Amino acid sequence: MAELKKAVILIADGTEEMEFAITYDTLVRAGIQCTSAYVSRDNTEESTDDEYQSGPYATCSRGVKIVPDTLFTPDLTPDKYDLLIIPGGAAGANTISQNSVVQHLVREYINAKKYVGMICAALESNLPRQRLTSHPSVKHQLENHYDYSEDAVVVSDHFVTSRGPGTTFPFALTLVELLCGKEKRKDVAGPMVFPHGTFA
Amino acid sequence: MAELKKAVILIADGTEEMEFAITYDTLVRAGIQCTSAYVSRDNTEESTDDEYQSGPYATCSRGVKIVPDTLFTPDLTPDKYDLLIIPGGAAGANTISQNSVVQHLVREYINAKKYVGMICAALESNLPRQRLTSHPSVKHQLENHYDYSEDAVVVSDHFVTSRGPGTTFPFALTLVELLCGKEKRKDVAGPMVFPHGTFA
Repeated sequence: MAELKKAVILIADGTEEMEFAITYDTLVRAGIQCTSAYVSRDNTEESTDDEYQSGPYATCSRGVKIVPDTLFTPDLTPDKYDLLIIPGGAAGANTISQNSVVQHLVREYINAKKYVGMICAALESNLPRQRLTSHPSVKHQLENHYDYSEDAVVVSDHFVTSRGPGTTFPFALTLVELLCGKEKRKDVAGPMVFPHGTFA
Repeated sequence: MAELKKAVILIADGTEEMEFAITYDTLVRAGIQCTSAYVSRDNTEESTDDEYQSGPYATCSRGVKIVPDTLFTPDLTPDKYDLLIIPGGAAGANTISQNSVVQHLVREYINAKKYVGMICAALESNLPRQRLTSHPSVKHQLENHYDYSEDAVVVSDHFVTSRGPGTTFPFALTLVELLCGKEKRKDVAGPMVFPHGTFA
């Protein structure tokens, strides 16, 4: 039997709910264990129970309210997970990408050769120059520091980037393929009923 | 200024979270006011606060937990909303489609020439024979009673049907076009960054 793969997907107030739900759901369909972790707006080293209790859910970018599986803590380390995901949504991506513990974890995952997936987030992790993409609205923040691509999904070693809600299906299916293989990608895409010529 | 359009989108335990989130979010991007309403598993005439309090969120088909805006009640009538949406996900669609108040409301919306949108749900509303589609897995329950289509989205007068997570973007964008026009559809699709040749 294949080894159980595990992913942690970050969520904050303002996270893009389609990007979050499509990624989480698609990974679960592939048999990957997903844990969503709430990052509070307060840029401290870690979230506390108090902050979390102030609203037991993340209010996403268009008002969908999602209850996270757990709180973000520094111990969501690459020895415990195969994949760290940061969805977009301007306000949510800001909260997440400005958190210094998240920035540190991103580098830890990459150094440990575990995958990091990001959609359209403004990036503040001081990663080496490499190919990436993002939402067009933050291209200008990235194109001088990285080899900017307009592909729907860019895989640069263990760093996987994508553009927006409209590219999240191929982003999630690419992560499935990287973690579980091409056959699993097909198995997962089939019952999702993509129109001909799209992502299957 | 254009009149404010309003949609109610039903949710239950087992609802497909991608289908829910993509539809809700896309409609909100078009300026449509969305209200999600929780239908309890108990097939009574209406949900009660007690049932709702037993879990203040819907646990969706792949484990995403979504807090609804309100509880389902019989007064979500077509004089108050322009659009009633029933997302798929086998268990959620069963709960919703077997609820006799929902069945009654679907007919009320159609009779009032308000829109009803359904994704992949098994249908028990005794609607007149017409074109529709569904998830392939429930085709056999529908093809004798309706003119079954395998199109990604089928618009039959005010009844709009679709197939699964992979067809939910065109489903939601079709609803935007029907309620707000072709221009609004384009305005909404642009920033969602669909890959060339897909749904824009």
